[in-house]
Amino acid sequence: MNKKSEKLRDALYTRDIVKVVGAHDALSAIIGENAGFDAIWASGLGISATHGVPDASILNMTEFLEAAEFMDQATSIPVIADCDTGFGEVNNVKRMIKEYERRGIAAVCIEDKQFPKRNSFLSGGQKLADINEFSTKIEIAKRTQTTDSFMVIARLESFIAGAGLEDALKRAKSYTEAGADAILVHSKAKNAEEVFSFSERWLEENKSVPLIVVPTTYNQVQIEELIIHKFKMVIYANQALRASVSSMQQVLHNIIHQGTSKFIEDEVAEVKKVFNLIGTDDLNQTQQWFDGRLDQYKRLGLGMNS
Amino acid sequence: MNKKSEKLRDALYTRDIVKVVGAHDALSAIIGENAGFDAIWASGLGISATHGVPDASILNMTEFLEAAEFMDQATSIPVIADCDTGFGEVNNVKRMIKEYERRGIAAVCIEDKQFPKRNSFLSGGQKLADINEFSTKIEIAKRTQTTDSFMVIARLESFIAGAGLEDALKRAKSYTEAGADAILVHSKAKNAEEVFSFSERWLEENKSVPLIVVPTTYNQVQIEELIIHKFKMVIYANQALRASVSSMQQVLHNIIHQGTSKFIEDEVAEVKKVFNLIGTDDLNQTQQWFDGRLDQYKRLGLGMNS
Amino acid sequence: MNKKSEKLRDALYTRDIVKVVGAHDALSAIIGENAGFDAIWASGLGISATHGVPDASILNMTEFLEAAEFMDQATSIPVIADCDTGFGEVNNVKRMIKEYERRGIAAVCIEDKQFPKRNSFLSGGQKLADINEFSTKIEIAKRTQTTDSFMVIARLESFIAGAGLEDALKRAKSYTEAGADAILVHSKAKNAEEVFSFSERWLEENKSVPLIVVPTTYNQVQIEELIIHKFKMVIYANQALRASVSSMQQVLHNIIHQGTSKFIEDEVAEVKKVFNLIGTDDLNQTQQWFDGRLDQYKRLGLGMNS
Amino acid sequence: MNKKSEKLRDALYTRDIVKVVGAHDALSAIIGENAGFDAIWASGLGISATHGVPDASILNMTEFLEAAEFMDQATSIPVIADCDTGFGEVNNVKRMIKEYERRGIAAVCIEDKQFPKRNSFLSGGQKLADINEFSTKIEIAKRTQTTDSFMVIARLESFIAGAGLEDALKRAKSYTEAGADAILVHSKAKNAEEVFSFSERWLEENKSVPLIVVPTTYNQVQIEELIIHKFKMVIYANQALRASVSSMQQVLHNIIHQGTSKFIEDEVAEVKKVFNLIGTDDLNQTQQWFDGRLDQYKRLGLGMNS
Repeated sequence: MNKKSEKLRDALYTRDIVKVVGAHDALSAIIGENAGFDAIWASGLGISATHGVPDASILNMTEFLEAAEFMDQATSIPVIADCDTGFGEVNNVKRMIKEYERRGIAAVCIEDKQFPKRNSFLSGGQKLADINEFSTKIEIAKRTQTTDSFMVIARLESFIAGAGLEDALKRAKSYTEAGADAILVHSKAKNAEEVFSFSERWLEENKSVPLIVVPTTYNQVQIEELIIHKFKMVIYANQALRASVSSMQQVLHNIIHQGTSKFIEDEVAEVKKVFNLIGTDDLNQTQQWFDGRLDQYKRLGLGMNS
Repeated sequence: MNKKSEKLRDALYTRDIVKVVGAHDALSAIIGENAGFDAIWASGLGISATHGVPDASILNMTEFLEAAEFMDQATSIPVIADCDTGFGEVNNVKRMIKEYERRGIAAVCIEDKQFPKRNSFLSGGQKLADINEFSTKIEIAKRTQTTDSFMVIARLESFIAGAGLEDALKRAKSYTEAGADAILVHSKAKNAEEVFSFSERWLEENKSVPLIVVPTTYNQVQIEELIIHKFKMVIYANQALRASVSSMQQVLHNIIHQGTSKFIEDEVAEVKKVFNLIGTDDLNQTQQWFDGRLDQYKRLGLGMNS
Repeated sequence: MNKKSEKLRDALYTRDIVKVVGAHDALSAIIGENAGFDAIWASGLGISATHGVPDASILNMTEFLEAAEFMDQATSIPVIADCDTGFGEVNNVKRMIKEYERRGIAAVCIEDKQFPKRNSFLSGGQKLADINEFSTKIEIAKRTQTTDSFMVIARLESFIAGAGLEDALKRAKSYTEAGADAILVHSKAKNAEEVFSFSERWLEENKSVPLIVVPTTYNQVQIEELIIHKFKMVIYANQALRASVSSMQQVLHNIIHQGTSKFIEDEVAEVKKVFNLIGTDDLNQTQQWFDGRLDQYKRLGLGMNS
Repeated sequence: MNKKSEKLRDALYTRDIVKVVGAHDALSAIIGENAGFDAIWASGLGISATHGVPDASILNMTEFLEAAEFMDQATSIPVIADCDTGFGEVNNVKRMIKEYERRGIAAVCIEDKQFPKRNSFLSGGQKLADINEFSTKIEIAKRTQTTDSFMVIARLESFIAGAGLEDALKRAKSYTEAGADAILVHSKAKNAEEVFSFSERWLEENKSVPLIVVPTTYNQVQIEELIIHKFKMVIYANQALRASVSSMQQVLHNIIHQGTSKFIEDEVAEVKKVFNLIGTDDLNQTQQWFDGRLDQYKRLGLGMNS
């Protein structure tokens, strides 16, 4: 039993909308949970960025999985792992599912692009995977998982690749027939019309598989609008990453130019705040419990627990 | 030959002061280099924090080293690795030196506290290592390295532990006699008097081993003052981390409460900026070179290179 | 629910004796399972040896855990992980339990020696841990686990350190009161009298916690004798490792001296045998399933699954 | 300067033939060095096997590299890493070269098959890479390395795929023009005629790039014959692995069936032998040096080194 994947599945079916925060490491995941998000998106872009490499299948499964696992261990909400194109062919997808599921990740998301993938917001050609190959990958993924609640999300890149609404719909149907638990409709349009057009058609055809959006470029969209259009999950995929980039640039620039960190102190979290976020109190309590308990052992000795 | 350790050693002996930025991952290291810093401090607190665990010897050498290596690969300036108390006893120190040196790290810093260490800014007792044991550790570290330029920095925790100036001086002398390449005088005082008192005595006694400071609590100190007091390196150890924490908290709070990411867009870096930082241009150029070159091969075939 | 830890617990209470094979990697674990053993001992000596380092706390938890996890993934029998002295202090023990349990390991074993530990068969002084400290470690370990079936085994080094039977009994009682699920009585005597003396006293005092032995030095002991003396588990900890060492030495020596591998062919497994052991058939079947299924998708298209 | 890659390059140009042993972990590498081999082949099959997974691009670069690095650290002879098809596309090859070179590996070998590759000894179709694409990969690999001595070996799969001698020759020419430092002519024929036919043509055309063979299936070939046919390197790629498999199977079978390890003791290495192989003496000497030196520090105190 994987409680976190059950939690995620429940939320997807009972909430108006599930709010997900993109994290790039365990610390951003913790801050996301504290801010009130329901789940973590272990972002491929975010994890690549914190490792200093482009989001283009440069890091491998082991590296992405480790990052996702630290996020999971540091929080009490479910983690959805962004798994690129599945890290290779059918047997790689199989390994991926086994590893992510056993490590406690609640869901994985794979996208229908060709390996090596390029970030969806990069200009230039994006090549889509063959619809049948990708459907078969989804099917093997679902057949590999061993718990019922674990989820496999299929991410549609049709809009990103300029293949249009009909291609997106056709693919979404094939992927859900193959077993996909949810469909992430990706778009880099400046407004939400593109994804709304998709959800309308999806509902007209009485499809019940939940839809997910990632409003990065159409950031003006309100969550109420997404609910009205029946999206069941929204992922704010990279705002935390981008916030940290701009603040670090500013603060480090100031330190260099002002010859002191004095003037940035008010803008940055106290060291103590960092300690609080990463479980220092819990560590200290464990140490104190240990010290007290050890003292009892020393005084009372054998028979203490009996 | 390790060019980065030579670079660091040169800077330490030829610059007024070497400016070092604390990084918690490769991305913060990149931003630090771009801001104009001379070297990276692979911060134990920072790396622990991004892994969501307290700074108390919870992560192990493998995990710290991997993080430091990604910083090194993503930047062109030297990396100084914060190595806790050396990850164990004499044979662990030996392994540590071998691994960090072979992976291209320019310098390691070990602190004279007992294992498992606690972050120096935590309240409560800090236990110092035995001076002789720590000196012997420094000596084995220096005997283990295979290149001349690699550096071993000894970090004094006397002031942190409340052991006072004389203890700090005595230890600094012993550690430098044992081979330490530099002394990091740590302090959590509200002003720089404590570390200045140390540097004055150090200079009076004609000691030439360079001194390093970490002005976290005495943040009002100006870099010119540090130069006047003959410090050769200043480490701004955790400001980037703390900047990212506060900005992420604010931005994620706003998204949740405003139901949109629209209003935070101006405060956060564009996605494109993130791409730029992590080498996406270089990746694309390599891909383009490859595509063009492949085309030449196809057209000209065998004999093309001859 | 961790089925493997339940399986191990069941076996310990229902079998005459549980037969455990020491493995140094996933391949030796597979061969052990095939030979008929009931569980795998992820040997500290074995894992250190295959990494080319001494068995003296040189590798860290991450490295031992990864090796144990590959053993677990490659077999269907439970894995018991040899966890040295617990990889540090109380908070390290806590992390260890969390990590091993979440990765699917059925049981961990920690030994009551001081960190950094030395292999028990090495001559020279072995320092025992303080009985109360070690008992408190056992207690925190048991409090940390989240499933009922996961087991914590306490390994007694009293005989190894020359501390005698009474010390061993006193420690065993304290550790079991603190929650240890089983006691591993280690000995490097040339015969089994030492461990038999322990089991007799243990039974006289009506202790029900199961006892474990590792007959490395007293190899002449028969499993029937162990059953008579009520041992519930026997670990053949390093025979596979030692077999591989001697055979590799011989074969490589012959290749060098005979200038051909011709004459050793009959002594070594066929390449095909290696393929069989590591799941190549399963991989090929998955690939074939995929190819066939993909063909169906291509022919039948959308609606195939409905 | 990478001394090991210089050593390997020197050997390749000055010795009659360089004898290389396939290793699957650091321990087999150590035994190979002790047996008198000149270099280590970090075998893809071997590393996959010890991780319990098929040799079919299931493990990723990080996992192969770690295994190769432990081999390198444990021995004083050069390591040649079997790098599958290069772990992906052009930017993955670039990352691969950077990582292997910085970690001290002397040479990498990539094979001209399509990803995901299948072991060359598996029956069933082997698909060759496009000659131009593979040549361009070789070229980017050579352009990426930063030291002169690091080597990139191109492995020809033409014979394995049934593409014949002319295809092999054409590819070998293209790869060497693109910069390959050596050509590994792979064959699964029952005798050496196939590879001899290749070397004859290679020499007739006055090609000076060194040739490498892996006599697994044509094991009756004598090293003198290989020298006569001007091969400059011979790799005994998997004999150590296969020796360990058969010996472990036998010994574990005996323990189970005889109910004791008594009767296998004479066939397996002593525990002490294992200790010797993995540097236990060196560890103990370091510990003793440390203890003695610490004692001096305690007695003589400050000023001891001056």
